[in-house]
Order: sequence, then structure tokens, then C-alpha cells
Amino acid sequence: MNGAEALVQTLARCGVNTYFANPGTSEMHLVSALARERDVRLILCLFEGVATGAADGYGRMRGVPAATLLHLGPGYANGGANLHNARKAMTPLLNIVGDHATYHRRFDAPLTSDIAAWAAPNSRWVKSADKADEIGPLASEAVTSSYGPPGGCATLIVPADSAWSSTSVLGHASIRPNGPSVDAAAVSAAAAALAAAAKPVLFLGGECLREAGLQIAARLVNARRLRTPLRIMSETFPARQARGSGRLAPSRMMYFAEQALADLDGVDVMVTVGASEPIAFFAYPGRPSRLAPEGCRVTSLAQPGANVIDALSGLSDLLEGTTLAERAAPPPPPLPQGALNPKTVGISLARHLPNQAIISDDGVTSSLPIYLLTSDAQPHDWLALTGGAIGQGLPLAVGAAVACPERKVISLNGDGAAMYTIQALWTIARERLDVTVIIFANDIYAILQIELARTGTNSSGAPALPVLRLDDPSINWSKLGESLGLRCSECLTAESFDAAFAHAMQTAGPELIVVRLPPSV
Amino acid sequence: MNGAEALVQTLARCGVNTYFANPGTSEMHLVSALARERDVRLILCLFEGVATGAADGYGRMRGVPAATLLHLGPGYANGGANLHNARKAMTPLLNIVGDHATYHRRFDAPLTSDIAAWAAPNSRWVKSADKADEIGPLASEAVTSSYGPPGGCATLIVPADSAWSSTSVLGHASIRPNGPSVDAAAVSAAAAALAAAAKPVLFLGGECLREAGLQIAARLVNARRLRTPLRIMSETFPARQARGSGRLAPSRMMYFAEQALADLDGVDVMVTVGASEPIAFFAYPGRPSRLAPEGCRVTSLAQPGANVIDALSGLSDLLEGTTLAERAAPPPPPLPQGALNPKTVGISLARHLPNQAIISDDGVTSSLPIYLLTSDAQPHDWLALTGGAIGQGLPLAVGAAVACPERKVISLNGDGAAMYTIQALWTIARERLDVTVIIFANDIYAILQIELARTGTNSSGAPALPVLRLDDPSINWSKLGESLGLRCSECLTAESFDAAFAHAMQTAGPELIVVRLPPSV
Repeated sequence: MNGAEALVQTLARCGVNTYFANPGTSEMHLVSALARERDVRLILCLFEGVATGAADGYGRMRGVPAATLLHLGPGYANGGANLHNARKAMTPLLNIVGDHATYHRRFDAPLTSDIAAWAAPNSRWVKSADKADEIGPLASEAVTSSYGPPGGCATLIVPADSAWSSTSVLGHASIRPNGPSVDAAAVSAAAAALAAAAKPVLFLGGECLREAGLQIAARLVNARRLRTPLRIMSETFPARQARGSGRLAPSRMMYFAEQALADLDGVDVMVTVGASEPIAFFAYPGRPSRLAPEGCRVTSLAQPGANVIDALSGLSDLLEGTTLAERAAPPPPPLPQGALNPKTVGISLARHLPNQAIISDDGVTSSLPIYLLTSDAQPHDWLALTGGAIGQGLPLAVGAAVACPERKVISLNGDGAAMYTIQALWTIARERLDVTVIIFANDIYAILQIELARTGTNSSGAPALPVLRLDDPSINWSKLGESLGLRCSECLTAESFDAAFAHAMQTAGPELIVVRLPPSV
Repeated sequence: MNGAEALVQTLARCGVNTYFANPGTSEMHLVSALARERDVRLILCLFEGVATGAADGYGRMRGVPAATLLHLGPGYANGGANLHNARKAMTPLLNIVGDHATYHRRFDAPLTSDIAAWAAPNSRWVKSADKADEIGPLASEAVTSSYGPPGGCATLIVPADSAWSSTSVLGHASIRPNGPSVDAAAVSAAAAALAAAAKPVLFLGGECLREAGLQIAARLVNARRLRTPLRIMSETFPARQARGSGRLAPSRMMYFAEQALADLDGVDVMVTVGASEPIAFFAYPGRPSRLAPEGCRVTSLAQPGANVIDALSGLSDLLEGTTLAERAAPPPPPLPQGALNPKTVGISLARHLPNQAIISDDGVTSSLPIYLLTSDAQPHDWLALTGGAIGQGLPLAVGAAVACPERKVISLNGDGAAMYTIQALWTIARERLDVTVIIFANDIYAILQIELARTGTNSSGAPALPVLRLDDPSINWSKLGESLGLRCSECLTAESFDAAFAHAMQTAGPELIVVRLPPSV
């Protein structure tokens, strides 16, 4: 057995058997070991940002890390933006980064760089296995570390000579630990604060927004010890939120700070569970960073990674939670008609989303109406852009589809966002993933045109700066998708999109639908 | 004047007026200041690796830095791989990275990250302008630092509030300094070592490979004080090499270590100028890292960044250099016929390359024969992949074409390599750059299939591992290029490529030619 084989076998013990790879020469022994292993899924990505985003999507859906296989420092860097998103999502994720042989490092060959320094900002754990005997044990340690809590990226650097040298040492199996319990006194304090409040808010994030958390949170809305009903709110961009018919739909923290401030006006108590306190996405001249109103008492009941289910249960016990009347599922909305826009797309999603669909959201300005319109759709999971680094939507869909082959994945993408990691389309086609890709083609960085005004830079309503426009040339999305192996269609009306989307939902396999929008969103 | 305007005006003083940008909200004041400035070229890239690679190409051709405009840590990370290449090329380059407002950093908003830590591995200078008054002076300092010597990346972090706040402070003009002179004793020692050698090699890198350096180096080949003719060799992957008819053609250090070792057999003295000693690109089991033979005396005459022209001149004086007979330009080779392959492509380039063309080389396995076959073509510059991070070829071509609008740029790309930064095609189309893109479509990571055998992992001649193959689906390159706005053609024979290439050389503007190759290299 060589070091590469020890790595693969140790990770198999840990339940890590899915690799999103963009390998190079220094990883050839790893690739070779993986190719010989039967129970491994080795998925080629043509760009590292696809590999890391896919591992994030996999980890969000499975709770077990997928591994990336990256080529030295530059390979890691190419994956860095989606690792930033994964860090903010607190996803368990394992990066395996090949390096030069240990004795070769000092010669500063062209691909030599400080991999550990590059990995540090996004990794909760970084180590280099400088001997073959260390690979197995460090692989176990990396998996353990990826679980946190809270979860995150662990980066194991594997020099080529460690991979090719002999060893007989395997690492132990590593399994996901439970999050630390929340102190009973903290639960009491939070309960007391909420009970006494005139306008209380429970702000949920992370694991609270999975099905189990929402079920408990629903009992708190009209809990008997409260003075007034409790408003349940969610992070703006959750890693994974259970949504749809029969599930509690928290009101989402607004993205635009001025809207969030207005929305929270008068709130006197806010208790956060599995989330930090709400903060403006960006700073703007003359506006506060914190979204909670001045004078509002903000209490953290449970940090991300803590046992939030216990915390919410404890809160429900103390506040004497009640069963919330189940929302009657409204009939599906009628066929949208006329001009195609994000609202009509949202209506079509509400009509045709299959049970247990997964939505990967990188739709930027187009997503909000879709989010709002799908709260009564069939039960589904919504995966948001956690770290603000656009270019997550397609890779995340790859990972979610690999993790959950029995579930339909819908990938929502702004045209600007999709271009960052467009190589993901090829992997979707290659792996025959059950992903329906939707591209909102408005030929503009619409969010930036809005932000230009909001930052006070361009409040005159002047036309879009050329540097924010994508219309010269306008990208031909159907051709682009077809060039990378996908079946494509382009829609110009609400009716045609509804038909195309309905058909995609009934048909397995990769498909791309272009939503052609006017540039002025 | 706000901080953003102070930045733009200071950089104008320094001669920095070209920006490759992929901005976000935190850069809106910078974008707005740039859009108001007349003498600025602001070029939108749809992915940051395009912006950084383009700035590298610009800096290699102009010797003055271009600026990138990047969005926080993830934007920097996306540009990191091509900044690695720029670092290895020692290109003067200025990164401007927008950050949250200083007071917003502590709240850990979604896009918050440690930008300085991310920038450190590739930057010779990183500072944050935390007040508007600091922007101008730090911008000057950054430009000065980018020149080195040796040159490299300087990264200026600009928090949003520094950009939007008022200031009256500009930085001073910064100009490129001369490299430090080489000590006379070092020149004497190198001359003595070469004069006494039985099989001497002069190993050139960096600035030595520009026209002026090669002219002096040519005088050394048959210098009177030498015992035997001096073999002039070059780095395998120079940042920029002047080549073609009438210019010295050093023999290139071989890429594959075993070939380099054989090629250097018996060399007893090697003097390096503007380069470090030759090192194997990768380590292989049982092979040395250093390429110079055991017992060979390796002397550094001048490190990269030193005044190599003076060093070479001094050497020529001491060794009594002679004028090398000019190579008679051979007649252009005849029309290649039959199957299309890298050799016939090389012949077509030799036939039709216009005077002062620029070649951006990311052709991986397809490039070597082209390099060899073009040594007597019309005078041109060859820009190699300096840091081994593939995905440089298209962005570098963008930057070279912006820097030298009067020169034809040819971009050679392996299909695997092209996919990393494929978004560059859009910028080529948008800016109407005079770039002919050539894609070698062999549907495989051919270099990895070779390396798999060379690392001893797969010496059985087994068929390519699926994870190294790009043929399912096979990328339709013509459709891909057309989708991003380029005129495309696909060639299957040597004759059709010759005709297509000849036509492209006579026609200004963007064009893409697909070289369809069989998958077995």
C-alpha cells in the first residue's frame, strides 16, 4: 500500500467516497489509487471552483464531507471563492491538495507556492502529510475537524512523495459529533426576554432551518407565555432551508439594509438561534451595519454549530409552545401569461416543482420573487448563496445532484453569476445529473446597477455604466449550453417557460432553460 | 475629490491607466470614478482570473503595470492562479481589491474575509488604505513596489469608506527603476569559469531573453577567450522571449526532466543570468530535482531583476565577444498537407506569422513542436506559461492585445487549459481585440496521461483513465466560441488550417480556430 491508497482507504472508513477532482501531475498517484477503488465516485471538473462548489452542495445535502482533489496552490486558489461560500455555510468539506515532493519544495519550481498560507483563510484545519505514514491518521483528523462544530473546510496537503511511498498505516473512522448543548440558563434568559417583549423576533439560521428545527419553531409562534405572537425570521441566505407546503415559512431578513431596518422597526427583543445577529450585507454611507433597531435587546441563544434542536425544544417547553394550525395548501396558481419575468418564473416553479426538489439559488436579482412565490410549493430544500461570492449556483447543483440522485435539482442563475463557473455545465452533462439549469439572461449586472444608486454614487438615475452591461456581445446561452453537452431551450413568454419547465420536471437528466429578460430588471 | 478619485488620479500620474475589472458593490465608487475619467481604459472581465491574466499580459508587453479591480477576498481568490503565473513572470501588476467599509469589517458580513492573508502568497506588497488620505500615497507606493526589482504583484486593499470619503491628498508619480548593477567580481568569476570550461552553458532567463539581451548573448557564442563554443540556453517557460528571423535562438531547457538530464550530460560549467538554476518542473520517484549534472559548477551571474544587460555586456567584454554570423532566413516552409497535427500547425505559423506578432502559449502538449518550428518565422514575442497554472493563455492574450493594439496576437490553448478561463473569449469579442485564438481539441488532458506513466503510476500503457478524458461530452468549440461572440472555424486537415490561419493573419479582429486532433496526442 502506498500513501495514496492509505488516504483513499482511510476516507472510505470515514464514509468519504465522493471526490470532485481537477488533478495535475502531483496528484497522479492519488488519481491512480482512486481509479482502482470500486466504491468511489470520482467526478472530473474542468475548473476547481466547480469542484469546491460541488463539494459544498454535497456536504449541505449529505452532512458528510465530499473531498476535492486540487493541484497545488493555484488549484486551491481557483477553488477559493466557493470555499469561502462553503465556510460561510459551515459545510463539512475536505480539500486534498497535492504538492511537490517534500524534497522538491525548496527548489522553487514553477508551481511551488505556500499552499498552507493560501488555504488558511477558508480552512478550519490545514496540515501537510509530509510522510506516507502520516496520511491516514491526518485524513481521519481532517474529517473530524470538518465536522466542527461548526462544520467547515479541512485542507490536507499531500506531497507527491508521501503519496507514492509505502506505508501500512491507516487512519481510524471518524463520524459526525453532536453539537454542544446549550446552557439551561441561556434558554431561561431567552425565554424570559421573549415572554416580556412587546415585539419579539426569533432569528433562525443554520440547522434551525432544516425540517426538524422548523417544526419546533412553529410551536413557538403562539406559545402561551408570550405577550404577543412571536415573529420567526430566517437568515437572508441560509445554507439549506426546508420549505414548501406544510412547513413553517419564516419571514426572510431583507437583503437591502434600508428595507430590513424598516421591517424591524419597533422590535424590542431579538433572540438568535444558530445564527449571528443580522448585519447589513454591505455598508452604505450614513447607514448602520447592524440591522436590529437601536435599543433592541439582541440575545444569542445558540451559536451556529450548537445543538439548536435542544435549544429550540427547551425554549418551547418554557414558553409553553402550541401546535400551529397547519397552513392549508392553496391550490396551485394558474398558468402565468404574457411577458416572462422572475415573477412568472416563480409561479411556474410553484406549479410544477416536484416533491423533494432541491433549489440551488444563485439568481441574484431574479431570485427574490421566486423565493416568495414558492413557499407553498411541494416540499423542497432551498440552498442559498451563503458567502456572497457569485458563481456558486451551478457547482452547488452538481454536488446536490450527486448527493441526492433521486431528487430533482433546479439551479437558478443570473447570467453574470453563471459565467464564473460555467464549466459546471460540462460536468452536469458528463455525469447525466438530474439538474434543470435556469439562466436569467438580462445582459446586465443588475444588482450592481441597483447598488450603484444605493451607495450614493449614481443617484441621478443615469443609464447603466457600460462596465456593468453584458449586452455587447449578448451571450447566446442556448449555444453555450449545447456546446457543453446540454439540451437547451430559450423562452420569451410566461407560457413557453411554464411548458418548458413542466416538461423538464417530468423528464430526468440535464437540461438548460434560458429565461430571456429585458435588461432593465 | 473622494478617495476613489484620488486613486485614479494618482495612478494616472504613474502612467497606470488600464484596468481589468470585475467589480462588485464595494467597488462602486471606484467604478464611478473610473467611468468619469477620460484617459482610462476600463475593461470588463466576467471572471477575475481573466482580469489578472490580462494584467499580466499587459505588464509583460508594456513594462508598466495594469490594474485589476477585484471584489473582496473571493474576487482576489478567483484571480489567484493567474497572479501566481504573474509572480513567476515577475510582471509589474497592481491589484486593487475593494473591501467593506472599515467599520463594517468587524461584523463578519457574508463577504468578509481576510483579504491580506489571501493576497500575501502572490504579492510582494499588500497594504490597506484605511483612510481616504492614505489612498493616493499608498497607490504610489504600490506602483513603486510592483517594479521591484524584480517586478511582481502589489495589492492595495481599498475599504469602501476610504473610497467614498473626501480627501485632497494625491500620491506622487512613480516610475520604473533600473535593476541593481552586477558586481564586477561576479562578472570576472563567471567569465573565468566559462573560459576554462570544457562544455560550458550560459542559462538565460527574464530580461535576457528580450531583444537587447539576446543581441549581446549572441556575441558570446564564439567569444575569443572560450576554449569551446558557448551553448546558450533559455528557461523552459520565459515570461517573454524575442524570437524569429535574425534573432539568437537559445536552446530551450527541456521540460521532461529525463530529457533535460540527457541534454545537459557532460556540462561542466553553467552560468545563470536573470534566472535561477534549472530545476525539474515536478519531482519523480528516483530522479533528481536539479537538472545540472552532478559535478557541474553552477554560478549565478545575475539574479532575476538585476541589470542583466550590463552583466551580459561585461561578460562579452571580458570574453572578447564576436559578432555571430546572422542566420540566413530560410525560405518559408511549403504548404503542409494531410492530417492536422501540432507540427503542421507549427509550419503554418512559420509561414504566416506577421512581423511583430505576439504568441500567448498555453498549448501544453501541442506547443512544443510549434515553438521549435517558428524559430525562423517573422520576428515575434513568445509569452510562456511561467507558473504552470494552466488557464493563462486566453487572458494573457487579452492583456497583450490591449497593450499592443498594433500587433497581432495569437493565443495557443490546449482544450483543457482553455476551459479554466474561457470567459476571456467574451472580453476578446467585446473589446474587438486583434486576437486569433487557437484551440487544440484533443478531448483529453494529454499531459496528464503522459505524466501518469512518468510518475510510475501507470507504466503498463493502459488506456487513459476516464478522469483524464474530456470526450464525454466532447466540447463543441465552434459553438462555444460563437456563443461568446467570436467568429469560429474548425479545421480537420493541415491544408484547411493553413488557409484559415493565413486568412486570420490578414484580417483584423477576434477569431477562433479549432484544431481538431485525435485524442491520442
